[in-house]
Amino acid sequence: MVTAHQKAAILVEALPYIKKFYGKIIVIKYGGHAMVNCELKRAVMTDVILMKLVGMHPVLVHGGGPEITQMLRRVGKQSTFVNGLRVTDRETMEIVEMVLVGKINKEIVALINSLGGQAIGLCGKDANLLRARKKMTEVDIGFVGEVVCVNPTLIMNVIRDGYIPVIAPIGLGPEGESYNINADHVAGHLAVALGADKLVILTDVEGITVEREGERSVLSTLRLSEVPALVGQKQIAGGMLPKVECCANAIRGGVRRAHILDGRVPHAILLEIFTDEGIGTMVVEG
Amino acid sequence: MVTAHQKAAILVEALPYIKKFYGKIIVIKYGGHAMVNCELKRAVMTDVILMKLVGMHPVLVHGGGPEITQMLRRVGKQSTFVNGLRVTDRETMEIVEMVLVGKINKEIVALINSLGGQAIGLCGKDANLLRARKKMTEVDIGFVGEVVCVNPTLIMNVIRDGYIPVIAPIGLGPEGESYNINADHVAGHLAVALGADKLVILTDVEGITVEREGERSVLSTLRLSEVPALVGQKQIAGGMLPKVECCANAIRGGVRRAHILDGRVPHAILLEIFTDEGIGTMVVEG
Amino acid sequence: MVTAHQKAAILVEALPYIKKFYGKIIVIKYGGHAMVNCELKRAVMTDVILMKLVGMHPVLVHGGGPEITQMLRRVGKQSTFVNGLRVTDRETMEIVEMVLVGKINKEIVALINSLGGQAIGLCGKDANLLRARKKMTEVDIGFVGEVVCVNPTLIMNVIRDGYIPVIAPIGLGPEGESYNINADHVAGHLAVALGADKLVILTDVEGITVEREGERSVLSTLRLSEVPALVGQKQIAGGMLPKVECCANAIRGGVRRAHILDGRVPHAILLEIFTDEGIGTMVVEG
Amino acid sequence: MVTAHQKAAILVEALPYIKKFYGKIIVIKYGGHAMVNCELKRAVMTDVILMKLVGMHPVLVHGGGPEITQMLRRVGKQSTFVNGLRVTDRETMEIVEMVLVGKINKEIVALINSLGGQAIGLCGKDANLLRARKKMTEVDIGFVGEVVCVNPTLIMNVIRDGYIPVIAPIGLGPEGESYNINADHVAGHLAVALGADKLVILTDVEGITVEREGERSVLSTLRLSEVPALVGQKQIAGGMLPKVECCANAIRGGVRRAHILDGRVPHAILLEIFTDEGIGTMVVEG
Amino acid sequence: MVTAHQKAAILVEALPYIKKFYGKIIVIKYGGHAMVNCELKRAVMTDVILMKLVGMHPVLVHGGGPEITQMLRRVGKQSTFVNGLRVTDRETMEIVEMVLVGKINKEIVALINSLGGQAIGLCGKDANLLRARKKMTEVDIGFVGEVVCVNPTLIMNVIRDGYIPVIAPIGLGPEGESYNINADHVAGHLAVALGADKLVILTDVEGITVEREGERSVLSTLRLSEVPALVGQKQIAGGMLPKVECCANAIRGGVRRAHILDGRVPHAILLEIFTDEGIGTMVVEG
Amino acid sequence: MVTAHQKAAILVEALPYIKKFYGKIIVIKYGGHAMVNCELKRAVMTDVILMKLVGMHPVLVHGGGPEITQMLRRVGKQSTFVNGLRVTDRETMEIVEMVLVGKINKEIVALINSLGGQAIGLCGKDANLLRARKKMTEVDIGFVGEVVCVNPTLIMNVIRDGYIPVIAPIGLGPEGESYNINADHVAGHLAVALGADKLVILTDVEGITVEREGERSVLSTLRLSEVPALVGQKQIAGGMLPKVECCANAIRGGVRRAHILDGRVPHAILLEIFTDEGIGTMVVEG
Repeated sequence: MVTAHQKAAILVEALPYIKKFYGKIIVIKYGGHAMVNCELKRAVMTDVILMKLVGMHPVLVHGGGPEITQMLRRVGKQSTFVNGLRVTDRETMEIVEMVLVGKINKEIVALINSLGGQAIGLCGKDANLLRARKKMTEVDIGFVGEVVCVNPTLIMNVIRDGYIPVIAPIGLGPEGESYNINADHVAGHLAVALGADKLVILTDVEGITVEREGERSVLSTLRLSEVPALVGQKQIAGGMLPKVECCANAIRGGVRRAHILDGRVPHAILLEIFTDEGIGTMVVEG
Repeated sequence: MVTAHQKAAILVEALPYIKKFYGKIIVIKYGGHAMVNCELKRAVMTDVILMKLVGMHPVLVHGGGPEITQMLRRVGKQSTFVNGLRVTDRETMEIVEMVLVGKINKEIVALINSLGGQAIGLCGKDANLLRARKKMTEVDIGFVGEVVCVNPTLIMNVIRDGYIPVIAPIGLGPEGESYNINADHVAGHLAVALGADKLVILTDVEGITVEREGERSVLSTLRLSEVPALVGQKQIAGGMLPKVECCANAIRGGVRRAHILDGRVPHAILLEIFTDEGIGTMVVEG
Repeated sequence: MVTAHQKAAILVEALPYIKKFYGKIIVIKYGGHAMVNCELKRAVMTDVILMKLVGMHPVLVHGGGPEITQMLRRVGKQSTFVNGLRVTDRETMEIVEMVLVGKINKEIVALINSLGGQAIGLCGKDANLLRARKKMTEVDIGFVGEVVCVNPTLIMNVIRDGYIPVIAPIGLGPEGESYNINADHVAGHLAVALGADKLVILTDVEGITVEREGERSVLSTLRLSEVPALVGQKQIAGGMLPKVECCANAIRGGVRRAHILDGRVPHAILLEIFTDEGIGTMVVEG
Repeated sequence: MVTAHQKAAILVEALPYIKKFYGKIIVIKYGGHAMVNCELKRAVMTDVILMKLVGMHPVLVHGGGPEITQMLRRVGKQSTFVNGLRVTDRETMEIVEMVLVGKINKEIVALINSLGGQAIGLCGKDANLLRARKKMTEVDIGFVGEVVCVNPTLIMNVIRDGYIPVIAPIGLGPEGESYNINADHVAGHLAVALGADKLVILTDVEGITVEREGERSVLSTLRLSEVPALVGQKQIAGGMLPKVECCANAIRGGVRRAHILDGRVPHAILLEIFTDEGIGTMVVEG
Repeated sequence: MVTAHQKAAILVEALPYIKKFYGKIIVIKYGGHAMVNCELKRAVMTDVILMKLVGMHPVLVHGGGPEITQMLRRVGKQSTFVNGLRVTDRETMEIVEMVLVGKINKEIVALINSLGGQAIGLCGKDANLLRARKKMTEVDIGFVGEVVCVNPTLIMNVIRDGYIPVIAPIGLGPEGESYNINADHVAGHLAVALGADKLVILTDVEGITVEREGERSVLSTLRLSEVPALVGQKQIAGGMLPKVECCANAIRGGVRRAHILDGRVPHAILLEIFTDEGIGTMVVEG
Repeated sequence: MVTAHQKAAILVEALPYIKKFYGKIIVIKYGGHAMVNCELKRAVMTDVILMKLVGMHPVLVHGGGPEITQMLRRVGKQSTFVNGLRVTDRETMEIVEMVLVGKINKEIVALINSLGGQAIGLCGKDANLLRARKKMTEVDIGFVGEVVCVNPTLIMNVIRDGYIPVIAPIGLGPEGESYNINADHVAGHLAVALGADKLVILTDVEGITVEREGERSVLSTLRLSEVPALVGQKQIAGGMLPKVECCANAIRGGVRRAHILDGRVPHAILLEIFTDEGIGTMVVEG
């Protein structure tokens, strides 16, 4: 049982954070477990609405998840993977885009709106938001792209009009073709282009963990200068590697802080933003 | 060959129309042949961009078309029809929404943007644009809906920010469920809610045709008062009936003029808006 | 110990209240114990800053307290009281005004500013904020006044410029003379003139208490229609009577809710505004 | 006969030009035949209104023409000319000013307004628009002046308020005296001071013509670097020389393009601005 | 010699008047002796600039004067008069317009600007400011017109942009023809259309004089209700009659006060507006 | 007796000064005799209101005067002085602040408002306007402070909202303690921080007087470069020394002109600002 006194103390604890982030843009990569579990979903969206109400400008970038695979299976499409990336032929791309833009994106939008927020679903094609090009890899993996440039005007307009933008990671190629882009990368590029104060990446781990003297523990702060050594020691590896890269690029591009948070903790974003608790790993310059 | 003199005359002919519609909202239902044929598509989008540039505010509502059927077939889904309306179970609805919102809508957006316009794709869920409810019919046809109310603020914001809104006819039900709504009806309701000056419905016929003394000819103007008689004589019937109803409702809701145009004629909208030519049928009060 | 999960839950609990009061004006009468105890002072000011940051517009009206008596004693001025009201001759009035405006008011301002807010201290003379007249009583009690009219423009300007107005209850008489006005009354009149959403009166009791079947308990809600009977039964009496009157007048003047809160509870305002807890007594219409 | 299809094509052809010049200032020197022939007059004014409606900001500078001579004759005033410039004594200047400002200028204004535009007639004295000084020549030719400086604020205000400014080429001397200034020069200086995108000079010839291998033909593009040679070869000579100079100065002053158009062709401006046709000669940098 | 003390007293005397007329529109009919005498001219223009600087919005309407007659004589045009009105054939009208618009108007503008103001010269044709029709009289007197309607937008724009509008009394007829309108009437109509606070008519007499008991004296205040009797007694007659009518119409149209001032007194307007002195006759309601 | 003609001449004389100072900020240090004498008080406030009305932005800084001493005496507090500065212990400071902020400041505000102006009383604590620190002197003189920094935003907001700010010279120390600061210095610092055009210091002498050839006369202009010599010769000494320093610092900080005026002359400010009279001493660069 929390007493009234404790409640007050917790609200008061939020005060300096509200002041600090007033009017700031915070880009959130939303994915993983938090996108599948119903309660976690609602918790994330509530956090985002709370941020908006107290004067911050959250921008949501979502990934795909199991629904793409499911839909591909329904149309009898077999996927091949190269180095963990799905080989995306034109037909696959069409399905990917439909699921991301026509299903996942609008479901998030509807959820935010049903909880009392005001969201708008967008993708990289809207007002040429995300220009993309084919990602060059040894083996041709089709319509997998990378960001060429971001046009921040649309997002700034949408923010100023009071809406929460929810963005599907589809980029527009030079010939009008669509590209599937990694959502972490989209979030990182957007954070830089929007002059965001923070980049938050929700994952399914506790943060960046390192082994020291046989014990594995979460790094609460990671300085850019420490990254190369940790990568060399394979302490940062696998799926965490591209996430750390995104964070590093965002920081180098002027974003003040980047966070890798455990999306399995309810209200992880809220606790990170509004309390003194250390949640996950914060990547900073230096 | 058109001479310079003739060119000038045609541009000058556009002048009074540009003045007349300056700052006015014009809702366009885009569908049928003009949505399938590549050249017609480009012609429609060019018209829309031209309208925007000379100070009008076009708002595009699109329908579905063959791609829905195609996608349903791909996932092995058989459709039943009752009175011409597709019985839309939850699974069908999911496909319909994905195709409308994730494919058709964003393709239109990308086409406009590639031609130099600035479009944004939206559906009824964005900022609660279109509230819907189940359409009541004798036989339950599932997630086929009708408009309950329109929240015009989002569209007004988007217009003021200089974008062309492109809207997929998906409505948001009271429980957060999606509804497939007839695009003509969405266009009609939007026209009223936005205080539009004109509603334009693109079809695959020349306009409303009536038979008089054995000859069938296109009505250039149709007064609301003439509708009941023509419906009684079955001169207005079949697929044209709901379109005329939409126009009538729009007119009664304060829209000054509604047009049923032949979308197979390239630049039909442009000719209707900017020239003295009579194209299709204009529905007016009186 | 409060867990992270509980913290999150408490912040989330605040969300609907933040939404509800966004952009609303809340007039707070600050007095009694909360004005003397250092920790309570800070707690009240922290609450006010928090309200401002999350988009509300708090307006503070403060009373006098022991410092007036102390100062009068220092200048060797004896006070007579009639029906609990200090007989205020010209010399006393001068001291009262100096202490209220030159000491208490600016101390509150400095405290808010030191905690990170932006406050401005004002009194009824600034831009003719409070026009007053002599309060007519059987025995002449000198420069004790009542509000004639409130000019809300200055407060609206100050609010719009982002400041928290702190107001000393000094009114300006028709001949330029000063009047000492009861701070509860000033708060009530300001709430009406500013179109406030809420009036909050901090007192040194738990709220309005009534005796029922030998037990005294706090009324969590008091309807206007219940007031006459409770006054008749002397359940509302003494110092509480004028406070209830102020609340009743505010409600009749269009303020949605009035609260009598226990200023001895730290963060009483914050708990009232941001949580589901019932704190003190809420006066409502009906 | 022009078909609907051709009409549409011509309107569509205008699209990129409308986009290109949106919000741009275009200064037009109006004179010669186009000022005398009634139909040509209307054509020019229609073009100007069309430009304004589609988002450009046309600014009109007009010359004098036969009406000055006519009026001088009526008051029995004989004119002497030195090197093609009228010797302008005080009495002549008075007549010149009255005819330019009180007759020609306001007739143009009235014509634009009768065709549905919103024009205002101004001269160099209004808000000190054009400061002038005496033009120094071997023989004293009186009140013939040249531009000293342009105050663009008035024109910018008038443009922003939605009006088409029509300017008589009268300059204000240091002692408050009036000067008659060559309208081409006024147009050139205005174009520079207003940061115009284009300067258009209407003349009574097809453009700049050069003789090559015995054949005379119109130069569609003239680069600044080619001017000296052509002047040396007397290919640019006589009345064309000062016009080319004006264009060259405008280009050097930052105006992107200058055009010498045949004012005898109806809607020459419109064809130049809105179509792919090559009309007259365009002077560009390089 | 005026002492510093007296100077201060006079400036202080102006204070309430400055407050009273802050942001108010004051229409001034400028004519007669004040238009001919150089020193009086400067005095009037200085007054107008002073008014503008202290926050009023003066609007100047001027008449013609001897220069029209002079110019007509120069072109050998004989004028006939009917009931004091010049018979104005097309040729006369042309001269009248040229002199009013091309000479007198711009001279006033240049004078104001040389004294440090910012004036713009306009006539009834600019942005269709004054729509006129032929004045119907027993004998056809040609292009003498009366005001049909005033379009106040242009003047409001010009005022808001900080300029002093100077208006020549030329009206635009239905066929685009020009009409010469009495400047008093133009001033009266403008005052009503602009919602002016004051109408000031400068004349060559001390004000409205009445004879009482053999003595002629200036009426300092004239109530509308007194007018009929004074007209019946021929106390108001001749050239004063139409001026009183203008004032009466302005008052009935909502202008608060109308003044007939002696333009031969230097700074008559300034003394009327800024001091307690009674200058000329003030016409008021009642 | 001043004739109407002379009145007009005096008002006209004010014209160029009104133009010159339009929209400019003028900081006035108000103190000495002008603060005690009732008639002089009203004269100063009238001048300030006049300045505001004709478009200037006066900012008033007031000093203390006899009322502080009087109040200290009433509470039986003896003051010691060191080098002319009152030793200000905590108790004295409390009294000083109460008198300055709670009495003198609000009396000035009430006087301005009663004369038709719109004033607001502020001190250095409001919105952290004046940050101060202890003034270091050989002998500890307690809470006598000096300006560390000025936050001009509040004053700019108040000015823009149309109010006249009246400022008590109380500064806020690093620990939240109050400091009594010399009002001349506050005025000088404010003038620099606000980018004022003028600093005006009202004193009880005619200006800076120097003795030349046995005769003492007022310097109408004092150049910064002359100051050292005059100080060396003790021509500038005593109480005048700090005032000249303030002026010099203001000029070095970008204020165009500083004036030391005789506050005993009624309307001294007005005469200085609005007339050609030389009043007091003007300090300028050079």
